[in-house]
Amino acid sequence: MTEKQTIGQWLDTLASKAPVPGGGGASALAGALAAALGRMVANLTVGKKRYADVEQEMQAALAVLAALQEELSGLADEDARVFAPLAAAYGLPSQTEEEKARKDKVMEENLLAASLVPLKITERALEVLRLLEGLEEKGSRMAVSDVGVGAQMARAAAAGAVMNVYINTKSMKNREQAELLNARAEAAVRESEHLADRIYGRVLEKLR
Amino acid sequence: MTEKQTIGQWLDTLASKAPVPGGGGASALAGALAAALGRMVANLTVGKKRYADVEQEMQAALAVLAALQEELSGLADEDARVFAPLAAAYGLPSQTEEEKARKDKVMEENLLAASLVPLKITERALEVLRLLEGLEEKGSRMAVSDVGVGAQMARAAAAGAVMNVYINTKSMKNREQAELLNARAEAAVRESEHLADRIYGRVLEKLR
Repeated sequence: MTEKQTIGQWLDTLASKAPVPGGGGASALAGALAAALGRMVANLTVGKKRYADVEQEMQAALAVLAALQEELSGLADEDARVFAPLAAAYGLPSQTEEEKARKDKVMEENLLAASLVPLKITERALEVLRLLEGLEEKGSRMAVSDVGVGAQMARAAAAGAVMNVYINTKSMKNREQAELLNARAEAAVRESEHLADRIYGRVLEKLR
Repeated sequence: MTEKQTIGQWLDTLASKAPVPGGGGASALAGALAAALGRMVANLTVGKKRYADVEQEMQAALAVLAALQEELSGLADEDARVFAPLAAAYGLPSQTEEEKARKDKVMEENLLAASLVPLKITERALEVLRLLEGLEEKGSRMAVSDVGVGAQMARAAAAGAVMNVYINTKSMKNREQAELLNARAEAAVRESEHLADRIYGRVLEKLR
């Protein structure tokens, strides 16, 4: 499990030839980093007199970000879990018509599973960004740069994961489903980049 | 030490009110993730007949990326280490002229140290990107999406860390030095964003 490994171990397995973790897992982890940074900012805001009027909003953000952090860490594991059956499906025999039909079916199922995980990473990263936008506006001024870093991490998570959607949908036979998944992924990544750049720009303005 | 902690522990300390790790540490970690992804791509390229003519370049990239990954992980620790003396300096008395002069001197030294660490993170992230560019062009086609994820991580590392340069140089009395540091940071982050976007665009083209 990703969360139980040391950072050194995880980085070195990432760096190795081993198929997982790879770019999908790294994207999920960047998303978890973004959520954790958002929690940090909310934690530095709650209970402060100066920010009393946003207390409830900050408490709500804390709860949602904790759930998103956990989900994104879990998606790093999930991304690793869907890899092996997909790799196995690529190796299925396809000599006879029957084998071919069976391989197609198994491939299609596993390609779908392997597309849905990075799509979820992208969409969750976008949710983190929506919360970061509120934190930039109303959270502790002292921690505004951490909102900016969080925005960069979430942007990288979304733009990183989306490539694994495209890789897997590319091989799908059901083109209608593939195009739907691509469209969902593209919308999420475009909004993430836009939102992250807006948040980051505002943070830079405050720092100057 | 960052590398010895579990990912779960590190994320939860990041999420807490504790001053470190914060955005600087998260940026350093994103840089280490980028370097590890680059190593993964190079590891999947070396020893392959198809890529025999880039073997030496890949071996060289492996060595440099391993060093960069280690340095970036270490910069997460370094970023935490320079925080305490800076926080202590902010609390020094400044009633008498003598106290004021001493505080100014100690502040200036610690602001410089606290600026140099994120500046180094940004510059190292740029070095990772320069290697990723070669990996995109010449590394294993099978792992090209991992180059794209690495580019996103390095971009986030550079753009994330640079804010901590600006925060610290802002309070420096030696404006000439502050402006020099800002200019170096800005050049590195601009080049990083440009390079990352170019690499990512090329990867997307290959995936389609």
